[in-house]
Amino acid sequence: MTPEAFTSPDGAAVVDAAARLRGRAHRTPVFTSRLVDRLCGAGFYFKCENLQRAGAFKFRGACNALLKLAPAQQRAGVVAFSSGNHAQAVALAAGELGIPATIVMPLDAPAEKLAATRSYGARVITYDRYRENREDIARELSTREGLAVLPPFDHPDVIAGQGTAALELFEDAGPLDALFVPLGGGGLLAGTLLASGIAAAGCAVYGVEPAAGDDGRQSLRLGRIVSIPVPRTLADGAQTQALGQLTFPIIRERVTDILAVEDEALVEAMGILARHLKLLVEPTGCLGLAGACSMAPALAGRRVGVILSGGNVDPARLASLLPRR
Amino acid sequence: MTPEAFTSPDGAAVVDAAARLRGRAHRTPVFTSRLVDRLCGAGFYFKCENLQRAGAFKFRGACNALLKLAPAQQRAGVVAFSSGNHAQAVALAAGELGIPATIVMPLDAPAEKLAATRSYGARVITYDRYRENREDIARELSTREGLAVLPPFDHPDVIAGQGTAALELFEDAGPLDALFVPLGGGGLLAGTLLASGIAAAGCAVYGVEPAAGDDGRQSLRLGRIVSIPVPRTLADGAQTQALGQLTFPIIRERVTDILAVEDEALVEAMGILARHLKLLVEPTGCLGLAGACSMAPALAGRRVGVILSGGNVDPARLASLLPRR
Repeated sequence: MTPEAFTSPDGAAVVDAAARLRGRAHRTPVFTSRLVDRLCGAGFYFKCENLQRAGAFKFRGACNALLKLAPAQQRAGVVAFSSGNHAQAVALAAGELGIPATIVMPLDAPAEKLAATRSYGARVITYDRYRENREDIARELSTREGLAVLPPFDHPDVIAGQGTAALELFEDAGPLDALFVPLGGGGLLAGTLLASGIAAAGCAVYGVEPAAGDDGRQSLRLGRIVSIPVPRTLADGAQTQALGQLTFPIIRERVTDILAVEDEALVEAMGILARHLKLLVEPTGCLGLAGACSMAPALAGRRVGVILSGGNVDPARLASLLPRR
Repeated sequence: MTPEAFTSPDGAAVVDAAARLRGRAHRTPVFTSRLVDRLCGAGFYFKCENLQRAGAFKFRGACNALLKLAPAQQRAGVVAFSSGNHAQAVALAAGELGIPATIVMPLDAPAEKLAATRSYGARVITYDRYRENREDIARELSTREGLAVLPPFDHPDVIAGQGTAALELFEDAGPLDALFVPLGGGGLLAGTLLASGIAAAGCAVYGVEPAAGDDGRQSLRLGRIVSIPVPRTLADGAQTQALGQLTFPIIRERVTDILAVEDEALVEAMGILARHLKLLVEPTGCLGLAGACSMAPALAGRRVGVILSGGNVDPARLASLLPRR
């Protein structure tokens, strides 16, 4: 891949992406629960991206970016590095579009994840995470084979694609007073902010990150991208060390605030979602609800959106986190 | 309650019930998953009654029956005995309709269930299940206070209400070759058979019960209602000892076959639904998928409906059943 200066996407790019994804990404349902409303003290609208294809919102951005590649690049293929939801999303979307995809994954990734990625038709290249650098491997592949590197969040077409989840939520739930969004590298939050700018101007939008990895909050306070060591948190999808060059300016300009929540609050939220909505949501996917609950008294009587960003957690692991009753 | 000779409901009663329940019961979503299709060898359409109000299809029958009571009886109220999904359903539906409800529950029922039932506004009367008979208590209350007893399955308005789930599935999924339905007392299966009679004449309909409690299969073979001791099975919603006077004739006349599955197959199905559909489904709710999997080779290439009947399982318990990966 040749280095490229990306330009920031806007609200129109999210609307374009929504049209492009129709019939490819699921229009995921929006669920409500009076019991949860009573427990958490607001009127909640849950956008169920845990029910998205490949189990997370990531499919939206990956699919949008792949569809926007030039035909020659689509024939040459793409490379992505990730052991998480982005890898699965790229593998699935590329497989369906007939675009060759290479995913660089750690040798010691769970066998199930390696198999799932291969089953979508992707080539999987493993590396030793203690001795090799995955970005070097991806860059070398990119140069040698002419593959486009598909980054997990800092790409305009990825950001625009992620914003389509909020666009659907605004359409289906009606006017919202506030919306709470998990925050890792900022792709979902930036896309959501672009969507709210054109579809829900009056809605406050909060990013929520794990307290152990509050680089986003620090960055917002200091007005520049703060980078931190890999944080220890259950929210493995939000272990990014820094916001992106594209996501940060959008977030800084438009976000209402960034909240940070402890892992205990994520476990509490997972239990509420499992017991009352019958949904498996991965810890990262619970950030939004945990953030909203942390503000609960201020939300009384309000209409509150929450993006449940993903559901890829082993059910046995989920249960091992929950207290027995 | 004065004893009453109920007449059997028909397909038109299901259509009536559907109109009556509009805006009261959720129209639950129908989910599909290519991974599950690949794993289980057919094209599956899952009707998610685990996402129904109070967590199970039971809300449909309870709400329909309550709405059909005479106004004087609605003022006097109803009594139901159950420690399971029927109790929650009656309590919730009655609470919303302003109908006084009394639920007779065992003293040693989980505190959470007692509290949930009370939180819906029902009066809860507890009894010692080792020394008292709940039906006697309900009958005495019925006589003394003029309450209508609302049985869990053997009632025409309950059966018709339960049939609305299949009616929606036929509308949303399009033509199906086969449909698999959990079988306990037969309310859901009988209602489904009435619905298929008017909306999906070509669809084979199977009831699925736990192998330890295969009274339905025995009854079908012998042509009369067979009663068995309370079976030991994970499928606590299908521990009924016998089909009903109303449900059995409908089932005998219309069902394609009744299958029985081992508890191990239920655990397998729970794991598949949690991992790939991100849904919590209680063991009883997994009977349909387990039954379909037991017939898998014969279903290759077919369009197969499955009713996931309920989701009221503690997530920690679900996990304790699943093998670690």
